[in-house]
Amino acid sequence: MKAAIVGATGYGGAELIRILQQHPEVTIESLHSSSLEGSKIADSYPHLQGVSGMKLESIDPEKIARNADLVFTATPSGVSSELVPAFINEGVRVIDLSGDFRLRDTTAYETWYNKKAPDEAVLEDAVYGLTEWLDADVTEAQLISNPGCYPTAALIGLAPLVKHKMIDPGSIVIDAKTGVSGAGKKATSVTHFAEMNDNLKIYKVLEHQHTPEIEQVLADWDPNIGAVTFSTHLVPMTRGIMTTIYVNATESISPAKLYDLFNTSYKDCYFVRVREPGTYPSTKEVYGSNFCDVSLAYDERTDRIMVVSVIDNLVKGAAGQAVQNMNRMFELDEKTGLSFAPVYP
Amino acid sequence: MKAAIVGATGYGGAELIRILQQHPEVTIESLHSSSLEGSKIADSYPHLQGVSGMKLESIDPEKIARNADLVFTATPSGVSSELVPAFINEGVRVIDLSGDFRLRDTTAYETWYNKKAPDEAVLEDAVYGLTEWLDADVTEAQLISNPGCYPTAALIGLAPLVKHKMIDPGSIVIDAKTGVSGAGKKATSVTHFAEMNDNLKIYKVLEHQHTPEIEQVLADWDPNIGAVTFSTHLVPMTRGIMTTIYVNATESISPAKLYDLFNTSYKDCYFVRVREPGTYPSTKEVYGSNFCDVSLAYDERTDRIMVVSVIDNLVKGAAGQAVQNMNRMFELDEKTGLSFAPVYP
Amino acid sequence: MKAAIVGATGYGGAELIRILQQHPEVTIESLHSSSLEGSKIADSYPHLQGVSGMKLESIDPEKIARNADLVFTATPSGVSSELVPAFINEGVRVIDLSGDFRLRDTTAYETWYNKKAPDEAVLEDAVYGLTEWLDADVTEAQLISNPGCYPTAALIGLAPLVKHKMIDPGSIVIDAKTGVSGAGKKATSVTHFAEMNDNLKIYKVLEHQHTPEIEQVLADWDPNIGAVTFSTHLVPMTRGIMTTIYVNATESISPAKLYDLFNTSYKDCYFVRVREPGTYPSTKEVYGSNFCDVSLAYDERTDRIMVVSVIDNLVKGAAGQAVQNMNRMFELDEKTGLSFAPVYP
Amino acid sequence: MKAAIVGATGYGGAELIRILQQHPEVTIESLHSSSLEGSKIADSYPHLQGVSGMKLESIDPEKIARNADLVFTATPSGVSSELVPAFINEGVRVIDLSGDFRLRDTTAYETWYNKKAPDEAVLEDAVYGLTEWLDADVTEAQLISNPGCYPTAALIGLAPLVKHKMIDPGSIVIDAKTGVSGAGKKATSVTHFAEMNDNLKIYKVLEHQHTPEIEQVLADWDPNIGAVTFSTHLVPMTRGIMTTIYVNATESISPAKLYDLFNTSYKDCYFVRVREPGTYPSTKEVYGSNFCDVSLAYDERTDRIMVVSVIDNLVKGAAGQAVQNMNRMFELDEKTGLSFAPVYP
Repeated sequence: MKAAIVGATGYGGAELIRILQQHPEVTIESLHSSSLEGSKIADSYPHLQGVSGMKLESIDPEKIARNADLVFTATPSGVSSELVPAFINEGVRVIDLSGDFRLRDTTAYETWYNKKAPDEAVLEDAVYGLTEWLDADVTEAQLISNPGCYPTAALIGLAPLVKHKMIDPGSIVIDAKTGVSGAGKKATSVTHFAEMNDNLKIYKVLEHQHTPEIEQVLADWDPNIGAVTFSTHLVPMTRGIMTTIYVNATESISPAKLYDLFNTSYKDCYFVRVREPGTYPSTKEVYGSNFCDVSLAYDERTDRIMVVSVIDNLVKGAAGQAVQNMNRMFELDEKTGLSFAPVYP
Repeated sequence: MKAAIVGATGYGGAELIRILQQHPEVTIESLHSSSLEGSKIADSYPHLQGVSGMKLESIDPEKIARNADLVFTATPSGVSSELVPAFINEGVRVIDLSGDFRLRDTTAYETWYNKKAPDEAVLEDAVYGLTEWLDADVTEAQLISNPGCYPTAALIGLAPLVKHKMIDPGSIVIDAKTGVSGAGKKATSVTHFAEMNDNLKIYKVLEHQHTPEIEQVLADWDPNIGAVTFSTHLVPMTRGIMTTIYVNATESISPAKLYDLFNTSYKDCYFVRVREPGTYPSTKEVYGSNFCDVSLAYDERTDRIMVVSVIDNLVKGAAGQAVQNMNRMFELDEKTGLSFAPVYP
Repeated sequence: MKAAIVGATGYGGAELIRILQQHPEVTIESLHSSSLEGSKIADSYPHLQGVSGMKLESIDPEKIARNADLVFTATPSGVSSELVPAFINEGVRVIDLSGDFRLRDTTAYETWYNKKAPDEAVLEDAVYGLTEWLDADVTEAQLISNPGCYPTAALIGLAPLVKHKMIDPGSIVIDAKTGVSGAGKKATSVTHFAEMNDNLKIYKVLEHQHTPEIEQVLADWDPNIGAVTFSTHLVPMTRGIMTTIYVNATESISPAKLYDLFNTSYKDCYFVRVREPGTYPSTKEVYGSNFCDVSLAYDERTDRIMVVSVIDNLVKGAAGQAVQNMNRMFELDEKTGLSFAPVYP
Repeated sequence: MKAAIVGATGYGGAELIRILQQHPEVTIESLHSSSLEGSKIADSYPHLQGVSGMKLESIDPEKIARNADLVFTATPSGVSSELVPAFINEGVRVIDLSGDFRLRDTTAYETWYNKKAPDEAVLEDAVYGLTEWLDADVTEAQLISNPGCYPTAALIGLAPLVKHKMIDPGSIVIDAKTGVSGAGKKATSVTHFAEMNDNLKIYKVLEHQHTPEIEQVLADWDPNIGAVTFSTHLVPMTRGIMTTIYVNATESISPAKLYDLFNTSYKDCYFVRVREPGTYPSTKEVYGSNFCDVSLAYDERTDRIMVVSVIDNLVKGAAGQAVQNMNRMFELDEKTGLSFAPVYP
């Protein structure tokens, strides 16, 4: 199978290269960048010297479609919405990592992303690719919209509870924390090492564009669920997301039953590791891997359930899940090329 | 004024030395340690070479009381409960940083701290020293119990809302994050650099001993308030606490009114900085200082109020607030010796 | 091929598991620990949950030899010297990561390691496994002594210059910097996050046990080379070593010729990446990988050559090179199971 | 005394504000910025909210000279060279932190800084302000050129050896490591947290502009000293510089005598702490303070002397030394306003 990566110089693109160069069923056919055409990827990412000698090419949908079976668009939001229709039109399948095709409601997209919404016809065909909870058969899908990093962690943590209607629909609070690579490759004053090191920041308070994405999926699972409170923090680490989720239980539940529920829900999901009761995951325990680790607690004093979930934002939160979705699209075992262990310590 | 520091080799003790060596009205009379008697403090803390040539002495309450006007007990919990009665007995005033004299309910103390509760008679005389909300006149107090680091940040953030009964008493969720110095000077596998670096951990889930301390103070302010949900995370930074607080508003309130409330509440409090609306504090912005910065948000979609508060856990969360309390006890301006700016970046 | 790992709970052991679980030609037969027998490896390393369900076994050389083709001893120095002879005796091949079999001079070993030297007969059979510069045919070797992390970086940087006698033998200064995982898994006050974070330390000044190892190899290459000055620093990062090497050139050399020399020397070495002239590697560019990146500079003002080399101390500096040596021992391509890219960022 | 700070929004300027707001003899008269005129300093640096309510003003030398006794120019190199002559012309005294007035050789300046050299007449009047080694009486000086951060650490470490001609003049190697604040406030890809965290970089190899500054001062002390080898590394920490210095001793010297020499040389220097023999400073031990800590080692095997010196690059390496120089200019005790302890941990 041949894959092209558009937006290869962002962190999502670089991570796709790292994963796909080891994937037994895929060849990276070409790398594309709108700005660095002609230079080598190893010039942008010296860690790839000797790993990939490829050059960056311009973005020519027709040519890409001719040579590749699949395109990963790891472009910024607002760019994919322009590019993806051309790829679809040329008949090549697409996995989009940008966020442009996640919200079905174009008004919501324009409100939260502050950008022009994508073409509705293309949007309608997009399958939301939270792999563990894919309802659709994606073996024929033209376009998979890869979930956001935060929604991946939050939704895997919430799914069993919401699907079994075990929580008060108005009670969901998601306190999310991310490593700084989540802010992308572009250097800004917010991500300047001298100011981000030894520091903890809260950002985009009540304005994060992943909020409606989480709400849309939850409402699909339980239409009673409306708005959630979702907050996002920048932690002085490179990779990793932790979501600490607080919900009111509709009725008391023993911790053992909570664990049963999650163990049952995820028993066939290699990449979701429900941790031993009484233990909690740290982000480093999934570093560099496609795992999502989940733990649970029940607060008898307040009848609240707490869910803690962690992922590597660039793997399960981006490139890894994209490859997992690719495996599903092409009827491979979902673990193919993804079963590497976390890098620890 | 002469002060003795008992437990000088812990981080709280070392921070007291840093602050008091610049305090214009205080002389450090003596430093005490149960284990390192006879060695110089600069042997334990080389950063103090040239700053303090003092040696560590054994803990002799009678002798300390004879020479000092005030004792800071920066000892571990379970140790202060043994030591403080002796100091009180000798007639020397005490500010205790350990936590042993914060909970009035000795059963709760024994449950959450898993240690023997202190003497009830001494406990009754202890004044809880959240300086900005001190009800009592402490100019005659024998014993001030210095608040915990997390409660300081959380309670300053919650006080105006709770005192004005603006929130649903059962809705309080406090998601707290701390730098690793909060875990103390003792090296453990949890705080090993190789595993804590580039990592984010949740710990003591539903078991943190600061939970009943927060609840006790909130119930004093509004007896309707019962249990809160309080969680604690270790962030890969040395200093700093952020509490992100979520509460359900009893009725809609405009952000402007929220800010008015907080600005009014803290208008005479030099160390509480209510930040400009729309801006949020990061922990580094109070690094090394006694400030507590607070910001607010109102989520119209869920009718939740969010409060974000940050402190330096070793200053406003420990040694700085202890000195602030000392200033109050001895009728000095509370800023004396504490008005140094944060160290940034 | 079946491998046993002795000392599986140290960082070297954990990294061997990470690498070998993806190696196409090897099965991990058993894991061994002197202290945690009976517990699961995932209890010590939760990142391995779902990756390895193996339990730790006691260290029984006879049984291990019966079941495994190869033993990795990732035990502390002073422990391997006791264990390895038993494995050799039982006829199982060994790759030792401990350092015990690196110094041929047992007196030097006892001086620098402050431990009892290993059995001389076993020591004589040990092959020093700096893979790129292996002189011996190791396909029949019983025991490979895996190089130290610092010597690996320093020797790869110095080899072309020393072998071609291009430098003043008495002029070698190696300023080395390591991430904190190099200090091992045991938590100590030196590696306490609160004190190591945002800090840079120099340690074991003129006393590091890797000094005689470097000197022994250099003297093998050029007997004129005697003592070197070697210093070691702890950098607030988890993984990575950089050695900055300063030597006096015996005669002027153009940068282009310097690069030619290194490119020629390493043209067949996949894992040594001589970087483009004018660019210099950072440690993160080899993070998690088996690469050693090298750059050069010539200071015309002082006639000094500078060499900068970086490795991941746990991979090329330990487990990765051990697997590379294993591949050589068993006549596999040296890249087998090791060609994964660095994790960046 | 009234001071103006020009370039108040850089890290050097912000650190001057932190120090001067606590200085008992100085009032900050005005803050100046070329780009943010009219905004509050606390908008650029929220940590200063409540500490300074000052607004940034444009740079009007005549007006500044009218109102201030002293101007600190914490402007970038190439900017000070333009501004300082105007201040001198208006008769106000200046301490320049930029580097523009450090090199007496204007050709060298243009080569290493790649900028137009300053006016020679002004340059001639500039006094190089390495405070501990000031030869000149500066009580009448119009212009003090504050040393670079690296030169401060390196020269304090080398001075006793060079002045006593104890080393081979051609043998000096200075391996320097800095925290990232040394790269300034501007965010760049080099200092992006996601790439600088958990990373170690070498930069400006053989091209750092502090090289000729070090050489100029050393040659003043011993004309036999010519070029030195000086390398610079970026360490993932915010503040701190360590220089590890290697020199060949002209004759053997006992460690005790080495320490005697340094203790004698610095006996009257409060801010230079010669550490106990056998102990070595870490950068955090001077964090936030004006100290320079120095340790020594003698390598009998190679007859090399090693000197390790650490400073906080923004304090002793910039703003702190500037205030120390100000104290000297205005005949105050050099410790005035600078005796605060390091912030540790």
